[in-house]
Amino acid sequence: MTSHGQFITFEGTEGVGKSTQLENAADTLKSLGVDVVVTREPGGTPMAESIRELLLAPRDEPVNDMTELLLMFAARAQHLQTLILPELEAGRWVLCDRFTDATFAYQGGGRGVPVEHIAQLENLVQGAFRPDHIVLLDAPVETGMTRARHRGELDRFEREAVDFFERIRQAYLDRAATDPDRYHIVDAAQPLEVVSRDVTSLIRGLVTRP
Amino acid sequence: MTSHGQFITFEGTEGVGKSTQLENAADTLKSLGVDVVVTREPGGTPMAESIRELLLAPRDEPVNDMTELLLMFAARAQHLQTLILPELEAGRWVLCDRFTDATFAYQGGGRGVPVEHIAQLENLVQGAFRPDHIVLLDAPVETGMTRARHRGELDRFEREAVDFFERIRQAYLDRAATDPDRYHIVDAAQPLEVVSRDVTSLIRGLVTRP
Ligand SMILES: Nc1ncnc2c1ncn2[C@@H]1O[C@H](COP(=O)(O)OP(=O)(O)OP(=O)(O)O)[C@@H](O)[C@H]1O
Ligand SMILES: Nc1ncnc2c1ncn2[C@@H]1O[C@H](COP(=O)(O)OP(=O)(O)OP(=O)(O)O)[C@@H](O)[C@H]1O
Ligand SMILES: [Mg+2]
Ligand SMILES: [Mg+2]
Repeated sequence: MTSHGQFITFEGTEGVGKSTQLENAADTLKSLGVDVVVTREPGGTPMAESIRELLLAPRDEPVNDMTELLLMFAARAQHLQTLILPELEAGRWVLCDRFTDATFAYQGGGRGVPVEHIAQLENLVQGAFRPDHIVLLDAPVETGMTRARHRGELDRFEREAVDFFERIRQAYLDRAATDPDRYHIVDAAQPLEVVSRDVTSLIRGLVTRP
Repeated sequence: MTSHGQFITFEGTEGVGKSTQLENAADTLKSLGVDVVVTREPGGTPMAESIRELLLAPRDEPVNDMTELLLMFAARAQHLQTLILPELEAGRWVLCDRFTDATFAYQGGGRGVPVEHIAQLENLVQGAFRPDHIVLLDAPVETGMTRARHRGELDRFEREAVDFFERIRQAYLDRAATDPDRYHIVDAAQPLEVVSRDVTSLIRGLVTRP
Protein backbone atom coordinates (compact mmCIF):
# COMPACT_ATOMS: atom_id res chain seq x y z
CA MET A 1 0.00 0.00 0.00
CA THR A 2 1.32 3.40 -0.97
CA SER A 3 -0.02 6.86 -0.28
CA HIS A 4 1.74 8.31 -3.33
CA GLY A 5 -0.29 10.11 -5.94
CA GLN A 6 -0.44 8.92 -9.53
CA PHE A 7 1.48 10.54 -12.38
CA ILE A 8 -0.62 10.87 -15.54
CA THR A 9 0.67 12.43 -18.75
CA PHE A 10 -1.20 13.76 -21.77
CA GLU A 11 0.37 13.23 -25.17
CA GLY A 12 -0.34 13.77 -28.84
CA THR A 13 0.55 15.96 -31.82
CA GLU A 14 -0.08 19.72 -32.04
CA GLY A 15 -3.58 21.00 -31.25
CA VAL A 16 -5.11 17.58 -30.71
CA GLY A 17 -6.67 18.63 -27.38
CA LYS A 18 -4.04 17.80 -24.71
CA SER A 19 -4.46 20.99 -22.66
CA THR A 20 -8.25 20.85 -22.95
CA GLN A 21 -8.42 17.24 -21.77
CA LEU A 22 -5.86 17.77 -19.02
CA GLU A 23 -8.17 20.42 -17.54
CA ASN A 24 -11.12 18.10 -17.97
CA ALA A 25 -9.23 15.31 -16.18
CA ALA A 26 -8.24 17.68 -13.36
CA ASP A 27 -11.89 18.69 -12.89
CA THR A 28 -12.94 15.04 -12.88
CA LEU A 29 -10.36 14.19 -10.21
CA LYS A 30 -11.28 17.19 -8.05
CA SER A 31 -14.98 16.23 -8.21
CA LEU A 32 -13.94 12.84 -6.82
CA GLY A 33 -12.03 14.47 -3.96
CA VAL A 34 -8.54 13.77 -5.32
CA ASP A 35 -5.84 16.42 -4.71
CA VAL A 36 -4.39 17.26 -8.10
CA VAL A 37 -1.58 19.38 -9.51
CA VAL A 38 -1.38 20.30 -13.20
CA THR A 39 1.89 21.07 -14.93
CA ARG A 40 3.56 20.87 -18.32
CA GLU A 41 6.76 20.01 -20.19
CA PRO A 42 9.11 21.34 -21.17
CA GLY A 43 8.65 23.63 -18.16
CA GLY A 44 6.88 23.41 -14.84
CA THR A 45 9.38 25.40 -12.73
CA PRO A 46 10.84 28.88 -13.40
CA MET A 47 14.20 27.43 -14.46
CA ALA A 48 12.61 24.72 -16.62
CA GLU A 49 10.35 27.34 -18.22
CA SER A 50 13.49 29.31 -19.15
CA ILE A 51 14.84 26.18 -20.85
CA ARG A 52 11.47 25.85 -22.64
CA GLU A 53 11.89 29.37 -24.03
CA LEU A 54 15.35 28.47 -25.35
CA LEU A 55 13.90 25.35 -26.99
CA LEU A 56 10.89 26.94 -28.63
CA ALA A 57 12.36 30.25 -29.81
CA PRO A 58 12.72 30.37 -33.59
CA ARG A 59 16.37 31.18 -34.41
CA ASP A 60 18.72 31.51 -37.36
CA GLU A 61 21.31 29.13 -35.91
CA PRO A 62 20.32 25.52 -36.67
CA VAL A 63 19.82 23.66 -33.39
CA ASN A 64 21.76 20.41 -33.17
CA ASP A 65 19.52 17.37 -32.49
CA MET A 66 21.60 16.33 -29.48
CA THR A 67 21.43 19.86 -28.06
CA GLU A 68 17.63 19.81 -28.32
CA LEU A 69 17.49 16.36 -26.71
CA LEU A 70 19.75 17.35 -23.79
CA LEU A 71 17.82 20.58 -23.19
CA MET A 72 14.58 18.57 -22.99
CA PHE A 73 16.08 16.27 -20.36
CA ALA A 74 17.71 19.19 -18.49
CA ALA A 75 14.27 20.78 -18.11
CA ARG A 76 12.83 17.38 -17.15
CA ALA A 77 15.44 16.73 -14.43
CA GLN A 78 14.64 20.10 -12.87
CA HIS A 79 10.87 19.61 -13.11
CA LEU A 80 11.01 16.07 -11.76
CA GLN A 81 13.15 16.83 -8.70
CA THR A 82 11.66 20.23 -7.90
CA LEU A 83 7.96 19.62 -8.50
CA ILE A 84 6.75 16.23 -9.74
CA LEU A 85 8.39 13.90 -7.19
CA PRO A 86 7.70 16.10 -4.14
CA GLU A 87 4.03 16.48 -5.14
CA LEU A 88 3.59 12.74 -5.70
CA GLU A 89 5.29 12.01 -2.38
CA ALA A 90 2.89 14.44 -0.70
CA GLY A 91 0.06 12.24 -2.00
CA ARG A 92 -1.16 14.49 -4.78
CA TRP A 93 -1.88 13.31 -8.30
CA VAL A 94 0.17 15.09 -10.96
CA LEU A 95 -1.23 15.66 -14.45
CA CYS A 96 1.43 16.68 -16.95
CA ASP A 97 0.97 18.14 -20.43
CA ARG A 98 3.61 16.06 -22.32
CA PHE A 99 6.50 14.11 -20.78
CA THR A 100 9.16 11.64 -21.95
CA ASP A 101 6.90 9.97 -24.51
CA ALA A 102 6.96 13.32 -26.33
CA THR A 103 10.76 13.13 -26.41
CA PHE A 104 10.64 9.65 -27.96
CA ALA A 105 8.02 10.89 -30.44
CA TYR A 106 9.46 14.33 -31.34
CA GLN A 107 13.24 13.89 -31.00
CA GLY A 108 13.12 10.16 -31.85
CA GLY A 109 10.34 9.78 -34.45
CA GLY A 110 10.42 13.40 -35.63
CA ARG A 111 14.14 14.22 -35.68
CA GLY A 112 15.50 10.70 -36.05
CA VAL A 113 17.62 10.60 -32.88
CA PRO A 114 18.34 6.91 -32.08
CA VAL A 115 15.90 5.51 -29.52
CA GLU A 116 18.81 4.03 -27.49
CA HIS A 117 20.21 7.52 -26.90
CA ILE A 118 16.86 8.74 -25.60
CA ALA A 119 16.43 5.64 -23.43
CA GLN A 120 19.91 6.18 -21.96
CA LEU A 121 19.02 9.73 -20.92
CA GLU A 122 15.63 8.59 -19.62
CA ASN A 123 17.41 6.15 -17.29
CA LEU A 124 20.00 8.73 -16.26
CA VAL A 125 17.42 11.40 -15.39
CA GLN A 126 14.48 9.32 -14.22
CA GLY A 127 15.99 6.11 -12.91
CA ALA A 128 13.02 3.70 -12.89
CA PHE A 129 10.42 6.48 -12.69
CA ARG A 130 7.74 6.30 -15.44
CA PRO A 131 4.21 7.72 -15.76
CA ASP A 132 1.55 5.54 -14.14
CA HIS A 133 -0.73 6.25 -17.10
CA ILE A 134 -0.38 7.98 -20.46
CA VAL A 135 -3.43 9.44 -22.20
CA LEU A 136 -2.59 9.51 -25.91
CA LEU A 137 -4.93 11.80 -27.82
CA ASP A 138 -4.74 10.52 -31.36
CA ALA A 139 -6.11 12.27 -34.42
CA PRO A 140 -4.96 12.91 -37.99
CA VAL A 141 -2.20 15.52 -37.98
CA GLU A 142 -4.26 17.93 -40.07
CA THR A 143 -7.15 17.80 -37.58
CA GLY A 144 -5.00 19.11 -34.74
CA MET A 145 -3.26 21.65 -36.97
CA THR A 146 -6.61 23.07 -38.07
CA ARG A 147 -7.76 23.32 -34.45
CA ALA A 148 -4.56 25.09 -33.39
CA ARG A 149 -4.35 27.34 -36.44
CA HIS A 150 -5.86 30.39 -34.73
CA ARG A 151 -2.70 30.68 -32.55
CA GLY A 152 -0.17 33.53 -32.81
CA GLU A 153 3.43 33.25 -34.04
CA LEU A 154 4.55 29.67 -34.69
CA ASP A 155 7.28 28.27 -32.42
CA ARG A 156 10.35 26.37 -33.66
CA PHE A 157 8.50 23.02 -33.68
CA GLU A 158 5.26 24.31 -35.17
CA ARG A 159 7.28 25.51 -38.18
CA GLU A 160 8.08 21.93 -39.17
CA ALA A 161 6.43 20.28 -42.20
CA VAL A 162 3.44 17.92 -41.96
CA ASP A 163 5.53 14.76 -42.44
CA PHE A 164 7.49 15.63 -39.26
CA PHE A 165 4.23 15.39 -37.33
CA GLU A 166 3.13 12.24 -39.21
CA ARG A 167 6.30 10.53 -37.96
CA ILE A 168 5.54 11.78 -34.44
CA ARG A 169 1.97 10.47 -34.52
CA GLN A 170 3.24 7.07 -35.66
CA ALA A 171 5.97 7.00 -32.98
CA TYR A 172 3.34 7.68 -30.29
CA LEU A 173 1.11 4.87 -31.62
CA ASP A 174 4.04 2.45 -31.78
CA ARG A 175 4.99 3.14 -28.16
CA ALA A 176 1.37 2.86 -27.01
CA ALA A 177 1.11 -0.57 -28.62
CA THR A 178 3.96 -1.92 -26.47
CA ASP A 179 2.14 -1.40 -23.15
CA PRO A 180 -1.68 -1.21 -23.39
CA ASP A 181 -2.09 -1.26 -19.59
CA ARG A 182 -0.42 2.13 -19.21
CA TYR A 183 -1.15 3.75 -22.58
CA HIS A 184 -4.73 4.78 -23.22
CA ILE A 185 -5.41 5.80 -26.81
CA VAL A 186 -8.34 8.19 -27.13
CA ASP A 187 -9.83 8.99 -30.54
CA ALA A 188 -9.34 12.76 -30.45
CA ALA A 189 -10.86 13.33 -33.90
CA GLN A 190 -14.31 13.02 -32.33
CA PRO A 191 -16.35 16.07 -31.32
CA LEU A 192 -15.14 17.74 -28.13
CA GLU A 193 -18.01 16.43 -25.97
CA VAL A 194 -17.32 12.85 -27.04
CA VAL A 195 -13.55 13.10 -26.39
CA SER A 196 -14.26 14.68 -22.99
CA ARG A 197 -16.71 11.93 -22.10
CA ASP A 198 -14.13 9.27 -23.03
CA VAL A 199 -11.40 10.97 -20.97
CA THR A 200 -13.69 11.50 -17.99
CA SER A 201 -14.66 7.84 -17.92
CA LEU A 202 -11.02 6.78 -18.32
CA ILE A 203 -9.93 8.97 -15.38
CA ARG A 204 -12.82 7.78 -13.19
CA GLY A 205 -11.70 4.25 -13.91
CA LEU A 206 -8.19 5.03 -12.63
CA VAL A 207 -9.52 6.41 -9.34
CA THR A 208 -11.88 3.54 -8.63
CA ARG A 209 -9.37 0.82 -9.63
CA PRO A 210 -8.96 -1.75 -6.89
CA MET B 1 48.96 12.38 -42.24
CA THR B 2 46.09 14.67 -41.38
CA SER B 3 45.48 18.31 -42.24
CA HIS B 4 43.19 18.77 -39.23
CA GLY B 5 43.96 21.47 -36.73
CA GLN B 6 44.65 20.67 -33.09
CA PHE B 7 42.15 21.21 -30.29
CA ILE B 8 43.75 22.69 -27.17
CA THR B 9 41.82 23.51 -24.02
CA PHE B 10 42.71 25.74 -21.06
CA GLU B 11 41.57 24.62 -17.64
CA GLY B 12 41.85 25.58 -13.99
CA THR B 13 39.94 27.14 -11.12
CA GLU B 14 38.58 30.70 -11.04
CA GLY B 15 40.94 33.56 -11.92
CA VAL B 16 43.99 31.36 -12.35
CA GLY B 17 44.86 32.90 -15.75
CA LYS B 18 43.04 30.76 -18.34
CA SER B 19 41.83 33.63 -20.53
CA THR B 20 45.17 35.45 -20.28
CA GLN B 21 47.17 32.37 -21.30
CA LEU B 22 44.73 31.42 -24.03
CA GLU B 23 45.39 34.82 -25.65
CA ASN B 24 49.11 34.33 -25.15
CA ALA B 25 48.91 30.90 -26.80
CA ALA B 26 46.90 32.31 -29.71
CA ASP B 27 49.55 35.02 -30.25
CA THR B 28 52.30 32.41 -30.12
CA LEU B 29 50.55 30.25 -32.72
CA LYS B 30 49.86 33.22 -35.01
CA SER B 31 53.50 34.26 -34.83
CA LEU B 32 54.36 30.77 -36.08
CA GLY B 33 51.93 31.07 -39.01
CA VAL B 34 49.25 28.78 -37.57
CA ASP B 35 45.58 29.66 -38.28
CA VAL B 36 43.88 29.79 -34.91
CA VAL B 37 40.35 30.25 -33.56
CA VAL B 38 39.65 31.09 -29.91
CA THR B 39 36.42 30.17 -28.18
CA ARG B 40 35.04 29.28 -24.75
CA GLU B 41 32.69 27.00 -22.83
CA PRO B 42 29.98 27.00 -21.90
CA GLY B 43 29.22 29.08 -25.00
CA GLY B 44 30.93 29.64 -28.34
CA THR B 45 27.78 30.01 -30.49
CA PRO B 46 24.76 32.30 -29.95
CA MET B 47 22.57 29.39 -28.80
CA ALA B 48 25.30 27.94 -26.54
CA GLU B 49 25.90 31.42 -25.08
CA SER B 50 22.18 31.55 -24.19
CA ILE B 51 22.59 28.25 -22.35
CA ARG B 52 25.63 29.76 -20.60
CA GLU B 53 23.47 32.64 -19.35
CA LEU B 54 20.93 30.16 -17.94
CA LEU B 55 23.75 28.28 -16.19
CA LEU B 56 25.52 31.26 -14.66
CA ALA B 57 22.57 33.41 -13.59
CA PRO B 58 22.14 33.47 -9.82
CA ARG B 59 18.57 32.35 -9.00
CA ASP B 60 16.35 31.57 -6.02
CA GLU B 61 15.34 28.14 -7.36
CA PRO B 62 18.04 25.58 -6.45
CA VAL B 63 19.45 24.10 -9.66
CA ASN B 64 19.41 20.31 -9.72
CA ASP B 65 22.88 18.78 -10.31
CA MET B 66 21.65 16.70 -13.26
CA THR B 67 20.03 19.77 -14.82
CA GLU B 68 23.33 21.66 -14.58
CA LEU B 69 25.22 18.70 -16.07
CA LEU B 70 22.79 18.28 -18.98
CA LEU B 71 22.83 22.02 -19.74
CA MET B 72 26.65 21.92 -19.89
CA PHE B 73 26.54 19.08 -22.40
CA ALA B 74 23.68 20.68 -24.37
CA ALA B 75 25.83 23.78 -24.87
CA ARG B 76 28.81 21.55 -25.70
CA ALA B 77 26.93 19.56 -28.36
CA GLN B 78 25.93 22.80 -30.06
CA HIS B 79 29.44 24.29 -29.84
CA LEU B 80 31.13 21.11 -31.04
CA GLN B 81 28.94 20.54 -34.10
CA THR B 82 28.53 24.19 -35.07
CA LEU B 83 32.00 25.57 -34.47
CA ILE B 84 34.75 23.31 -33.11
CA LEU B 85 34.55 20.37 -35.53
CA PRO B 86 34.06 22.49 -38.68
CA GLU B 87 37.03 24.72 -37.74
CA LEU B 88 39.31 21.75 -37.03
CA GLU B 89 38.25 20.12 -40.31
CA ALA B 90 39.10 23.36 -42.11
CA GLY B 91 42.64 22.94 -40.74
CA ARG B 92 42.53 25.63 -38.07
CA TRP B 93 43.70 25.13 -34.51
CA VAL B 94 40.99 25.73 -31.92
CA LEU B 95 41.87 27.09 -28.46
CA CYS B 96 39.02 26.70 -25.98
CA ASP B 97 38.62 28.34 -22.56
CA ARG B 98 37.36 25.31 -20.57
CA PHE B 99 35.91 22.09 -22.01
CA THR B 100 34.84 18.66 -20.71
CA ASP B 101 37.60 18.48 -18.09
CA ALA B 102 35.83 21.40 -16.42
CA THR B 103 32.66 19.31 -16.28
CA PHE B 104 34.50 16.44 -14.61
CA ALA B 105 36.09 18.93 -12.21
CA TYR B 106 33.11 21.21 -11.43
CA GLN B 107 30.08 18.89 -11.71
CA GLY B 108 32.06 15.78 -10.71
CA GLY B 109 34.61 16.97 -8.13
CA GLY B 110 32.69 20.09 -7.09
CA ARG B 111 29.06 18.92 -7.04
CA GLY B 112 29.68 15.21 -6.50
CA VAL B 113 27.94 13.92 -9.65
CA PRO B 114 29.21 10.34 -10.28
CA VAL B 115 32.04 10.27 -12.81
CA GLU B 116 30.32 7.45 -14.75
CA HIS B 117 27.36 9.71 -15.47
CA ILE B 118 29.63 12.40 -16.85
CA ALA B 119 31.59 9.87 -18.90
CA GLN B 120 28.34 8.50 -20.33
CA LEU B 121 27.32 11.97 -21.54
CA GLU B 122 30.83 12.64 -22.82
CA ASN B 123 30.56 9.57 -25.04
CA LEU B 124 27.03 10.43 -26.14
CA VAL B 125 27.91 13.99 -27.16
CA GLN B 126 31.54 13.66 -28.26
CA GLY B 127 31.87 10.07 -29.42
CA ALA B 128 35.65 9.49 -29.37
CA PHE B 129 36.48 13.20 -29.70
CA ARG B 130 38.84 14.50 -26.97
CA PRO B 131 41.18 17.53 -26.75
CA ASP B 132 44.61 16.94 -28.31
CA HIS B 133 46.17 18.84 -25.41
CA ILE B 134 44.95 20.28 -22.13
CA VAL B 135 46.82 23.17 -20.48
CA LEU B 136 46.01 22.96 -16.78
CA LEU B 137 46.84 26.18 -14.98
CA ASP B 138 47.28 25.14 -11.39
CA ALA B 139 47.51 27.47 -8.40
CA PRO B 140 46.16 27.60 -4.86
CA VAL B 141 42.45 28.43 -4.96
CA GLU B 142 42.98 31.65 -2.99
CA THR B 143 45.56 32.90 -5.49
CA GLY B 144 43.07 32.80 -8.37
CA MET B 145 40.28 34.21 -6.24
CA THR B 146 42.42 37.17 -5.23
CA ARG B 147 43.34 37.82 -8.87
CA ALA B 148 39.70 37.68 -9.97
CA ARG B 149 38.36 39.67 -7.03
CA HIS B 150 38.09 42.97 -8.92
CA ARG B 151 35.27 41.50 -11.06
CA GLY B 152 31.65 42.68 -10.89
CA GLU B 153 28.66 40.67 -9.60
CA LEU B 154 29.51 37.05 -8.79
CA ASP B 155 27.90 34.36 -10.98
CA ARG B 156 26.19 31.21 -9.63
CA PHE B 157 29.49 29.28 -9.48
CA GLU B 158 31.61 32.11 -8.09
CA ARG B 159 29.23 32.24 -5.09
CA GLU B 160 30.35 28.79 -3.94
CA ALA B 161 32.56 28.34 -0.87
CA VAL B 162 36.34 27.81 -1.03
CA ASP B 163 36.13 24.04 -0.39
CA PHE B 164 34.02 23.67 -3.57
CA PHE B 165 36.99 25.04 -5.53
CA GLU B 166 39.50 22.96 -3.53
CA ARG B 167 37.66 19.83 -4.70
CA ILE B 168 37.72 21.15 -8.26
CA ARG B 169 41.46 21.82 -8.16
CA GLN B 170 42.09 18.30 -6.88
CA ALA B 171 39.80 16.74 -9.51
CA TYR B 172 41.76 18.55 -12.25
CA LEU B 173 45.08 17.33 -10.82
CA ASP B 174 43.77 13.75 -10.53
CA ARG B 175 42.66 13.72 -14.16
CA ALA B 176 45.94 15.26 -15.33
CA ALA B 177 47.87 12.51 -13.59
CA THR B 178 46.15 9.82 -15.68
CA ASP B 179 47.50 11.04 -19.03
CA PRO B 180 50.68 13.17 -18.83
CA ASP B 181 51.11 13.17 -22.63
CA ARG B 182 47.96 15.22 -23.13
CA TYR B 183 47.73 17.11 -19.83
CA HIS B 184 50.29 19.85 -19.27
CA ILE B 185 50.30 21.22 -15.74
CA VAL B 186 51.60 24.79 -15.56
CA ASP B 187 52.45 26.38 -12.21
CA ALA B 188 50.10 29.36 -12.44
CA ALA B 189 51.08 30.77 -9.03
CA GLN B 190 54.24 32.18 -10.61
CA PRO B 191 54.46 35.81 -11.78
CA LEU B 192 52.60 36.51 -15.04
CA GLU B 193 55.76 36.74 -17.18
CA VAL B 194 56.97 33.35 -15.95
CA VAL B 195 53.63 31.62 -16.57
CA SER B 196 53.47 33.21 -20.02
CA ARG B 197 56.99 32.04 -20.83
CA ASP B 198 56.10 28.49 -19.77
CA VAL B 199 52.91 28.46 -21.86
CA THR B 200 54.68 29.96 -24.89
CA SER B 201 57.35 27.30 -24.79
CA LEU B 202 54.76 24.55 -24.32
CA ILE B 203 52.75 25.76 -27.32
CA ARG B 204 55.87 26.13 -29.49
CA GLY B 205 56.67 22.54 -28.63
CA LEU B 206 53.28 21.36 -29.89
CA VAL B 207 53.76 23.09 -33.25
CA THR B 208 57.26 21.78 -33.88
CA ARG B 209 56.49 18.20 -32.74
CA PRO B 210 57.40 15.68 -35.40
N1 LIG C 1 -12.34 17.27 -29.91
C1 LIG C 1 -12.26 18.53 -30.32
N2 LIG C 1 -12.98 18.98 -31.35
C2 LIG C 1 -12.89 20.26 -31.77
N3 LIG C 1 -12.08 21.18 -31.21
C3 LIG C 1 -11.33 20.78 -30.16
C4 LIG C 1 -11.38 19.46 -29.66
N4 LIG C 1 -10.51 19.35 -28.62
C5 LIG C 1 -9.95 20.57 -28.47
N5 LIG C 1 -10.44 21.44 -29.39
C6 LIG C 1 -10.06 22.84 -29.61
O1 LIG C 1 -8.87 22.78 -30.37
C7 LIG C 1 -7.95 23.78 -29.93
C8 LIG C 1 -6.64 23.10 -29.48
O2 LIG C 1 -6.92 22.36 -28.28
P1 LIG C 1 -5.80 22.27 -27.14
O3 LIG C 1 -5.16 23.59 -26.91
O4 LIG C 1 -6.40 21.57 -25.99
O5 LIG C 1 -4.77 21.30 -27.90
P2 LIG C 1 -3.27 20.94 -27.47
O6 LIG C 1 -3.11 19.53 -27.89
O7 LIG C 1 -3.05 21.30 -26.07
O8 LIG C 1 -2.48 21.92 -28.43
P3 LIG C 1 -0.89 22.27 -28.35
O9 LIG C 1 -0.20 21.08 -28.95
O10 LIG C 1 -0.75 23.47 -29.22
O11 LIG C 1 -0.57 22.51 -26.92
C9 LIG C 1 -8.66 24.54 -28.83
O12 LIG C 1 -9.24 25.68 -29.39
C10 LIG C 1 -9.72 23.55 -28.33
O13 LIG C 1 -10.84 24.20 -27.80
N1 LIG D 1 50.42 34.74 -13.19
C1 LIG D 1 49.71 35.81 -12.84
N2 LIG D 1 50.07 36.60 -11.83
C2 LIG D 1 49.34 37.65 -11.46
N3 LIG D 1 48.18 38.01 -12.06
C3 LIG D 1 47.76 37.25 -13.07
C4 LIG D 1 48.49 36.12 -13.52
N4 LIG D 1 47.80 35.55 -14.55
C5 LIG D 1 46.70 36.31 -14.73
N5 LIG D 1 46.68 37.34 -13.86
C6 LIG D 1 45.63 38.34 -13.71
O1 LIG D 1 44.59 37.73 -12.93
C7 LIG D 1 43.33 38.12 -13.40
C8 LIG D 1 42.55 36.87 -13.81
O2 LIG D 1 43.17 36.31 -14.99
P1 LIG D 1 42.27 35.61 -16.11
O3 LIG D 1 41.06 36.41 -16.39
O4 LIG D 1 43.15 35.25 -17.25
O5 LIG D 1 41.86 34.29 -15.31
P2 LIG D 1 40.78 33.21 -15.70
O6 LIG D 1 41.32 31.91 -15.24
O7 LIG D 1 40.41 33.34 -17.13
O8 LIG D 1 39.57 33.68 -14.80
P3 LIG D 1 38.03 33.17 -14.85
O9 LIG D 1 38.01 31.84 -14.21
O10 LIG D 1 37.29 34.20 -14.06
O11 LIG D 1 37.65 33.16 -16.30
C9 LIG D 1 43.57 39.09 -14.55
O12 LIG D 1 43.49 40.39 -14.05
C10 LIG D 1 44.97 38.76 -15.01
O13 LIG D 1 45.64 39.84 -15.60
MG1 LIG E 1 -1.55 22.55 -25.20
MG1 LIG F 1 38.53 33.59 -18.02
